Amino acid sequence: MAGNSFGTLFKLSTFGESHGVAIGGVLDGCPSGIEVDFDAIQNELNRRKPGQSAIVTQRKEPDTVEFYSGIFEGKTTGTPIGFAIHNTNQKSHDYTHIKDSYRPSHADYVYDQKYGFRDYRGGGRSSARETASRVVAGALAKQFLSEMKINAYVSQVGNMKMETPYQDLDFSQIEANPVRCPDPKMAAEMEAYIKEIRKEGDTVGGVISCVIQNVPIGLGEPAFDKLHAELGKAMLSINAVKGFEYGSGFDGVAMKGSEHNDQFNQDGTTKTNNSGGIQGGISNGMDIYFNIAFKPVATIIQPYQTIDKEGNFVQTKGKGRHDPCVVPRAVPIVEAMAALVMADFTLLNRTIKANS
Amino acid sequence: MAGNSFGTLFKLSTFGESHGVAIGGVLDGCPSGIEVDFDAIQNELNRRKPGQSAIVTQRKEPDTVEFYSGIFEGKTTGTPIGFAIHNTNQKSHDYTHIKDSYRPSHADYVYDQKYGFRDYRGGGRSSARETASRVVAGALAKQFLSEMKINAYVSQVGNMKMETPYQDLDFSQIEANPVRCPDPKMAAEMEAYIKEIRKEGDTVGGVISCVIQNVPIGLGEPAFDKLHAELGKAMLSINAVKGFEYGSGFDGVAMKGSEHNDQFNQDGTTKTNNSGGIQGGISNGMDIYFNIAFKPVATIIQPYQTIDKEGNFVQTKGKGRHDPCVVPRAVPIVEAMAALVMADFTLLNRTIKANS
Amino acid sequence: MAGNSFGTLFKLSTFGESHGVAIGGVLDGCPSGIEVDFDAIQNELNRRKPGQSAIVTQRKEPDTVEFYSGIFEGKTTGTPIGFAIHNTNQKSHDYTHIKDSYRPSHADYVYDQKYGFRDYRGGGRSSARETASRVVAGALAKQFLSEMKINAYVSQVGNMKMETPYQDLDFSQIEANPVRCPDPKMAAEMEAYIKEIRKEGDTVGGVISCVIQNVPIGLGEPAFDKLHAELGKAMLSINAVKGFEYGSGFDGVAMKGSEHNDQFNQDGTTKTNNSGGIQGGISNGMDIYFNIAFKPVATIIQPYQTIDKEGNFVQTKGKGRHDPCVVPRAVPIVEAMAALVMADFTLLNRTIKANS
Amino acid sequence: MAGNSFGTLFKLSTFGESHGVAIGGVLDGCPSGIEVDFDAIQNELNRRKPGQSAIVTQRKEPDTVEFYSGIFEGKTTGTPIGFAIHNTNQKSHDYTHIKDSYRPSHADYVYDQKYGFRDYRGGGRSSARETASRVVAGALAKQFLSEMKINAYVSQVGNMKMETPYQDLDFSQIEANPVRCPDPKMAAEMEAYIKEIRKEGDTVGGVISCVIQNVPIGLGEPAFDKLHAELGKAMLSINAVKGFEYGSGFDGVAMKGSEHNDQFNQDGTTKTNNSGGIQGGISNGMDIYFNIAFKPVATIIQPYQTIDKEGNFVQTKGKGRHDPCVVPRAVPIVEAMAALVMADFTLLNRTIKANS
Repeated sequence: MAGNSFGTLFKLSTFGESHGVAIGGVLDGCPSGIEVDFDAIQNELNRRKPGQSAIVTQRKEPDTVEFYSGIFEGKTTGTPIGFAIHNTNQKSHDYTHIKDSYRPSHADYVYDQKYGFRDYRGGGRSSARETASRVVAGALAKQFLSEMKINAYVSQVGNMKMETPYQDLDFSQIEANPVRCPDPKMAAEMEAYIKEIRKEGDTVGGVISCVIQNVPIGLGEPAFDKLHAELGKAMLSINAVKGFEYGSGFDGVAMKGSEHNDQFNQDGTTKTNNSGGIQGGISNGMDIYFNIAFKPVATIIQPYQTIDKEGNFVQTKGKGRHDPCVVPRAVPIVEAMAALVMADFTLLNRTIKANS
Repeated sequence: MAGNSFGTLFKLSTFGESHGVAIGGVLDGCPSGIEVDFDAIQNELNRRKPGQSAIVTQRKEPDTVEFYSGIFEGKTTGTPIGFAIHNTNQKSHDYTHIKDSYRPSHADYVYDQKYGFRDYRGGGRSSARETASRVVAGALAKQFLSEMKINAYVSQVGNMKMETPYQDLDFSQIEANPVRCPDPKMAAEMEAYIKEIRKEGDTVGGVISCVIQNVPIGLGEPAFDKLHAELGKAMLSINAVKGFEYGSGFDGVAMKGSEHNDQFNQDGTTKTNNSGGIQGGISNGMDIYFNIAFKPVATIIQPYQTIDKEGNFVQTKGKGRHDPCVVPRAVPIVEAMAALVMADFTLLNRTIKANS
Repeated sequence: MAGNSFGTLFKLSTFGESHGVAIGGVLDGCPSGIEVDFDAIQNELNRRKPGQSAIVTQRKEPDTVEFYSGIFEGKTTGTPIGFAIHNTNQKSHDYTHIKDSYRPSHADYVYDQKYGFRDYRGGGRSSARETASRVVAGALAKQFLSEMKINAYVSQVGNMKMETPYQDLDFSQIEANPVRCPDPKMAAEMEAYIKEIRKEGDTVGGVISCVIQNVPIGLGEPAFDKLHAELGKAMLSINAVKGFEYGSGFDGVAMKGSEHNDQFNQDGTTKTNNSGGIQGGISNGMDIYFNIAFKPVATIIQPYQTIDKEGNFVQTKGKGRHDPCVVPRAVPIVEAMAALVMADFTLLNRTIKANS
Repeated sequence: MAGNSFGTLFKLSTFGESHGVAIGGVLDGCPSGIEVDFDAIQNELNRRKPGQSAIVTQRKEPDTVEFYSGIFEGKTTGTPIGFAIHNTNQKSHDYTHIKDSYRPSHADYVYDQKYGFRDYRGGGRSSARETASRVVAGALAKQFLSEMKINAYVSQVGNMKMETPYQDLDFSQIEANPVRCPDPKMAAEMEAYIKEIRKEGDTVGGVISCVIQNVPIGLGEPAFDKLHAELGKAMLSINAVKGFEYGSGFDGVAMKGSEHNDQFNQDGTTKTNNSGGIQGGISNGMDIYFNIAFKPVATIIQPYQTIDKEGNFVQTKGKGRHDPCVVPRAVPIVEAMAALVMADFTLLNRTIKANS
């Protein structure tokens, strides 16, 4: 137990360092009988992979997943699904300059303190490369949850914020531009801004919004494992995430109860949805929506001062091929984590009533 | 497993409905040899309990905890600590009006859908009364973590927001006013505002900020169980919470990497702390700080329309004794949940190195 | 986490020391909608309680269980069931003689070594009194599993072994005698023998056999959580247990595969049942049966030499009121643990197929 | 969660079917800083692998393990260790005869019932091939536990039982013969007997005994997770195991308390060791020893009748290359599972005291 598993029933355990032999995972508890769409899985990986556009890191990693078990004659068997993605394009020498020093706002220093030493190549285990394994498992979760629709998109880059409510967006436009913002005009501006930032050797943060539709009533557990608490943990576990809010979120603070309460229609749906589809930790059948704040990537291609292992100041400069803004590539990761949470609660919810 | 346990090694399981016989819990994994300060535990419960001031619900619940096991001759024995708080002042007849109808933005409807029926009295399991058990366990966690300082306080009520950074606050002022805002002037204004809201029969939301100091380096796990992910889940599991952010949070989105990165001092501390004391999910020894958004309480003392079990519209009005603003009483709950997370990771961190 | 929880979905956490205020537990994950038969629960406690016959310890403990939550209008609500049994008849002064010395083959010594100190009264947490909490939860599990029939009985006391196969026994005779052996003649001999042993101030071991009937096909998981592995753990976790075997057990070792294999009937049942109802860790619909070995109780009412905390030899003698043979009272505990395992796998099995 | 993980802190998750692409696992929680002896790991796999002698299956599987992560510069990093063993010598056509029928006393039938369909090749997930992954993780556990000595050996084959107590055995003789029985004369007889059985196309069961020495005091948890309960579960989770006993085991039943109790020496050790090194579920520093019963392998190379999926009787005959007796190859599996249990409790025991 060192934090590398996620989920109770639909459970993913991941392994792998950025520049090791391979990354991968074991998905245990994926139900039997799902017809696996391998292209759809690879497509999710392609949405995450480096080099896909001009505004992301130019590393070339094919990120091809191999399945080792748990799928037979095209269907899941109910036994654990082992899989791996071999690392093929590591330029480890890019990192020898950080072997003995600590990059600011990276995990280098805390890893050395916690474990006594670290695999320094490319950030090792702390690299966001680990999330490729989540995307594989999340793609399988989506196939299990075929009725639900999970859509994430970029809603903010730097201080460029799209204010359009999700109901007015055309989700089919998300993949139409490299930023993954469904508002084409906003997307173009964001893209230009990211290119500018990259030219400076700098980076910038952003917000991803996520909407889950066609959610059955009853998912989530009352006390500690509230649906939004697990969604929040899932999102906060993604590299570079600094905040999570759902429904009315931080803006709900300034509202009065009389405005904020969602009045019922006769069929149990509600007229408004400040609750974000979740009441008391349990889905109420309305759309679930939430926002996730990502900080600017820590690796900048500018000279900076830092310390080495002995505590001496050293002068250095970011090398390697990095993302100027992480949110475009993080969209499929957000969807994957959302799918893992929803799959887990879907299974769990089958065990709630004595007779079902 | 239905979500009523929290923690891996320092593990709390809670039970209890608002108007049942008793609420309580089992704290398993609390280490042996802690000298228990019972007054300190009761004091935390008193900070949470109803009726403590003019701006909170006027229910009278003594909330006296009885310990059943796991403590001998004043010290924890290392065996599970069972405890209960008997419910003594339930006015269940206050709730017969909601037996057959669903309050808006409450969990009534989803409980009926999920479980087939519900204990409707006072919200049953969905009542924030459950959090009293967390406060008991959290108070024990604080005693285990005696080196760390965990301070939460109210930083916003409605749209009245205290902008003072935590470094400039005097935490000893938190308990000096019923709002639990350490800025006396701001506190007075907030108090007046809450009284006004109460007079309207309405409610309002707020923000609690929390600061953890004297944190050792190395707490938290890399992938899914990042320190801030567990803190986020812990906070989002508290009733009425809508959002969580740590360090630079949602504001960090608009920053550039070159501004956001925390430059090192020679001793491994950092000049700034946008990271909020956590790098890659692991504490770096700097102060941990985070904000939690609370929605306005759903129970308002105004007439409203809602639906009954058959889907007919019914006219009703909130009764009972409720909080106009939940944040003053939620401060000790936030601290308790923070303490549970820190205790768990403290124990877990003892198992990381082969020789320790 | 210190080993005081059992089960994944139907999960019991227990607390309590022999001479503390109360013992009890939290049962989390018990499905909603079970009509609770409180008499049946108390009846199971009565089968376990001291003083029930002339061949068990003469302590008087009423062992009345109080339910605190999770049951409303006579039915389980799906929320955690908290319960306690107050300790009312502790004679703690009976134990002051062991405060500073260690009883042979008791846990006194290892507790002091492990935890630094111990609640020495009546064995503290290591007392079999803890199992009363298991009986409560197990009785609820039985009510959930109303189709399955779980019967345990005494099949051996000392070297008096009943060789009758379970198929030839009348389970309705189990409760007809204080030994809980369904063969009346054998029961009478065992009873006489236990009385003789008690007169000597000595103790003796025994075997309990357990049969589970009407088991659906498919319970149990392939690799580590095989049905018999969980049953084995469950039984080995009961105080004084030294061994577990199922189906052909240790006798199966000497058989050849051609004899041991259970040939199929056309309906999927088998002609023989050396497998004990479990194939590859999964129930096959045949009866499950297993044996559990219990050692002689360690507390004997004879003088003996032991050591004190400083390692000096001291002369002492067992006091208190103890069982000469543990198996008659352990029968309901075995059934309770079996029921917990079967309930857990029943819930888990609902999550195996994508469409169910 | 479908039973494919073992351990709480030192946690192994395995994947893989007999004739899939690869088997393997993720070992999470293995502490950092262990210098990995790769030859020792491969040596354990070689002890388990087919084709190693004339009395085991003649399948040729090289069973070479590849490590994908968690080891850097020859040392464990504290991050999860992913590994795989590719399947290279599957003769899947050997199994087409069982595609549509069910082998007696195999898991074929229950898999189809539980999951709706199955990977029938070589038993799929129910194959003992899965245990190779356990051997890899167990070998790492042994390296972490370098002070403890874990020795398993064959003590019975069919009804040929070695009565010598373990204290009189020379463990260095275990590997001196293909049976892995440390008594050379007995080993020769067992070997001859197994060859005879193989000639008949039949199989036979056996017993493995295991001894753990140099165990620190204090490992194991009081209630459900007693040290022997976890050892029991670990052993019962190995394919073909039918029983487990420790210390005096089933023979202890017939003893009186006055004989069975282990009297103390002044240093806390005991004069006898009927307790098998465990008191109240916690190690007492004496040797731990236990026995494990294995049934005869179900696959026999003789004609037999069975049923097909439609419930028709069909005449068939075992094919493929199988073990006439499973115990010689199961010795390293027993040691591996013992090592996993001891490693887990070793880590857990670091978290028991407030100050340690």
